[in-house]
Amino acid sequence: MVSALSKSNSRGLRIFFEPKSVAIVGASRTPGKIGNYILRNNLKLGYSGQIFPVNPGATEIEGLRSYPSVAAIPEAVELAVIAVPAHLVLDIMRDCQRKAVRGVVVISSGFSEAGKEGMERQTELVRMAAEAGIRVLGPNTTGILNPEGRFTTTFVDLKGVKPGGIGFVAQTGMFAGMMFQWIFSSQYFGLSKVIGLGNKADVTDHDALDYLAQDEATRVVIMYLEGVKDGRCLLGSAVRLVRRKPLVLIKGGKTEEGAKAAQSHTGSLSGRDEIFEALVRQAGAIRVSDFEELLDFGKTFAYQRLPRSNRIAIITLSGGAGVMAADACLESGLVLARLEPHTLARVKEKMPSWASPGNPLDIEPLSEIVTQEGAYRLGLDVVLSDPGVDLALVVMSTLRMARVHADYLLDVAKAHPEKPVAVCIIGEAVIYSQLFQIMEQASIPVFVSVRRAVASLAALYRYRRFLDSLVKRA
Amino acid sequence: MVSALSKSNSRGLRIFFEPKSVAIVGASRTPGKIGNYILRNNLKLGYSGQIFPVNPGATEIEGLRSYPSVAAIPEAVELAVIAVPAHLVLDIMRDCQRKAVRGVVVISSGFSEAGKEGMERQTELVRMAAEAGIRVLGPNTTGILNPEGRFTTTFVDLKGVKPGGIGFVAQTGMFAGMMFQWIFSSQYFGLSKVIGLGNKADVTDHDALDYLAQDEATRVVIMYLEGVKDGRCLLGSAVRLVRRKPLVLIKGGKTEEGAKAAQSHTGSLSGRDEIFEALVRQAGAIRVSDFEELLDFGKTFAYQRLPRSNRIAIITLSGGAGVMAADACLESGLVLARLEPHTLARVKEKMPSWASPGNPLDIEPLSEIVTQEGAYRLGLDVVLSDPGVDLALVVMSTLRMARVHADYLLDVAKAHPEKPVAVCIIGEAVIYSQLFQIMEQASIPVFVSVRRAVASLAALYRYRRFLDSLVKRA
Repeated sequence: MVSALSKSNSRGLRIFFEPKSVAIVGASRTPGKIGNYILRNNLKLGYSGQIFPVNPGATEIEGLRSYPSVAAIPEAVELAVIAVPAHLVLDIMRDCQRKAVRGVVVISSGFSEAGKEGMERQTELVRMAAEAGIRVLGPNTTGILNPEGRFTTTFVDLKGVKPGGIGFVAQTGMFAGMMFQWIFSSQYFGLSKVIGLGNKADVTDHDALDYLAQDEATRVVIMYLEGVKDGRCLLGSAVRLVRRKPLVLIKGGKTEEGAKAAQSHTGSLSGRDEIFEALVRQAGAIRVSDFEELLDFGKTFAYQRLPRSNRIAIITLSGGAGVMAADACLESGLVLARLEPHTLARVKEKMPSWASPGNPLDIEPLSEIVTQEGAYRLGLDVVLSDPGVDLALVVMSTLRMARVHADYLLDVAKAHPEKPVAVCIIGEAVIYSQLFQIMEQASIPVFVSVRRAVASLAALYRYRRFLDSLVKRA
Repeated sequence: MVSALSKSNSRGLRIFFEPKSVAIVGASRTPGKIGNYILRNNLKLGYSGQIFPVNPGATEIEGLRSYPSVAAIPEAVELAVIAVPAHLVLDIMRDCQRKAVRGVVVISSGFSEAGKEGMERQTELVRMAAEAGIRVLGPNTTGILNPEGRFTTTFVDLKGVKPGGIGFVAQTGMFAGMMFQWIFSSQYFGLSKVIGLGNKADVTDHDALDYLAQDEATRVVIMYLEGVKDGRCLLGSAVRLVRRKPLVLIKGGKTEEGAKAAQSHTGSLSGRDEIFEALVRQAGAIRVSDFEELLDFGKTFAYQRLPRSNRIAIITLSGGAGVMAADACLESGLVLARLEPHTLARVKEKMPSWASPGNPLDIEPLSEIVTQEGAYRLGLDVVLSDPGVDLALVVMSTLRMARVHADYLLDVAKAHPEKPVAVCIIGEAVIYSQLFQIMEQASIPVFVSVRRAVASLAALYRYRRFLDSLVKRA
């Protein structure tokens, strides 16, 4: 029963991500207009389906034949993207009904978020959609982005779009747009699918989770929620998803004041944070309280496997940074691995006699004998070879005159694929970004902050522990 | 008594930052060598004092006449920077004694950090210095950097050096070097003075604080400690400093495991973290647990005044981000200001009828009537004019197509100089960095993370509260 529902839901949403044909209602010839961006974004992405611009005042837009209405399109239309003023939307819906369109993305605002009149308009929109078996995404959203499938309904100017393993669900479409601009312009990782839910008149959070649960390109889901409409459905979908892939989510309203602000903003039940918190815990989702952390955790899950357990080794050229990292590990639920005598002996023999290696492994003495490069390599290899180590953090401190070298670290990490590794780099910006590129390309997550690196590794372990608890219960 | 000590200490350290003449022992003609970097760094900075390269194998280095020894320099030498192998250092100290040098920076490693022999060497170094009344910085350090005074003892390749209001004390010299490379290459703010303490054979943490307490260019001190040698002296200096300017510090060893790691790293008493924590609290210093936060707090103190109290207003274009910010405020000791009826009326009259403004102030409805630009301006002006608001956070979410505009925000902030403002920007990287430049140039701290922005504003309030408690006690 559950899996049948899940299947039908995912079939329902697939039409938004992989339509064979799309009508863009409100398509415009004027650069800078929303209806022009949506069309051009798809041309830029290289969408391979049919595009039908709809605009009563044009016969051709961006080189494509344009139609005065959806009804006037001579061929079948699977999806309609509606970007016209709110008072025109219901008329267009009637055309979509007649045309047997299967999905509609309503970009327009002026619905439930805009007073009583808008609310009534939204109710009618939903009624018409249900009548004709049309799924509706929105209103008041930028809709979706499918980097790999080269299709989008967004009017947000696209640049640097990159496919990747992270599925991203955002309540507000505008926020989704800002976030993926941020991601594509400043992060190395890419996205598998983006869904901006908007007013959730029909398609809602749990539909999005069901879809992403079965989407093969999605390795991890990050989710930004404002309010929850149907907690039970969301819980059901979250539970199903988390059995297959991690779910990291952010939602305000933790504190009393935050909850009050949430209530006045969405008018939803989000105010009762204990309920939401219980839902998160039961589903095995991981809740964060900052967008930066959402991306940190997302990329770490997308890049790395899960550790067997929580015994971490820290390799550092700076003893002090090692101490900070040790603090952060303990605070996030990791424990410092007890290195085996054999492991310690392997580094000790390459160190000056006064040095006594431990965990954190300060490789400064090692670097005096085998160079910095050699010290990082030997240090990481030795700890990852230790059966008592489940995961590792390398804290690199690099001066600008240092040669940018990282291959040796990558080779060692690759030789131990079952043990996750993260890197924290403290140093000059140009060196940082070169090392960042090299490492993230090899799926090693890089951070400037020791605390954020450790928290991200700890998230891997938290998810592992949750999966283990399911096995035990079963 | 206390102030006499403080004066003598600061007189003692001034010689490291503003020497009239400096001998660079171990100066080298070979680019890439430590002794070459130290010399070239000073030429690059435009040091206006006399430089005497010392190298027995050269007669001229980088266009300057070179001397075979310190003793051979015909003129007075105030400061000597020693960058030769450890076993040669004591001989050079003898020359420095004879030459009546007033301060020595020992760059060389191979002292107390390097076993028994090194320890003995350091003891003798200190004895010789005390005998001749020479202050010693190091050994095992990069020493100091004085951006405004255009002088340095560091061999770390300098680029983008910028004077500013932040004084930075680091235990390890190498770490200081990495940090200021990071700062100069990635941050907008500059530094007033940098001190890398190294082994603290003579000059130690409390000397550094005494010096920075009276240094006029320093508005705030950020400090990275590994171990504490003399907690009582440090406390005394911290207490004196914090009466004049804020002190933000980071030191590992909070958790049991971290403390163990610290003990094995520095062998110091840092393991007893409760004692250190008590010291921090008594002095009114602010302890952070991440280098990123150290810089966040540092710049916020350097840029902004202190708020009168903790009543914050949040202006945001995204209701959801407002809720996250409200959560973060409550968690950091700030409270959401209750906006006055008059304040709310001022925004309400420019909003669609369905909107009901509050705090967080969601300016999206406002932007529909007065544009986004107008909404940010009016929103910030209205809340800063409210007598019940002590400080404000603006959460900007910007799409790439948005025009980069910020002047209006700066004008409003400038009109209310007694109320600190921070900005959080979520959006595309290029837009972000343009807005970042404009705002930080106007001394408004910018963040990508709502949580970090709020924590930084809260730090201003924590310091204000501490100063208030002193007044009450007095």
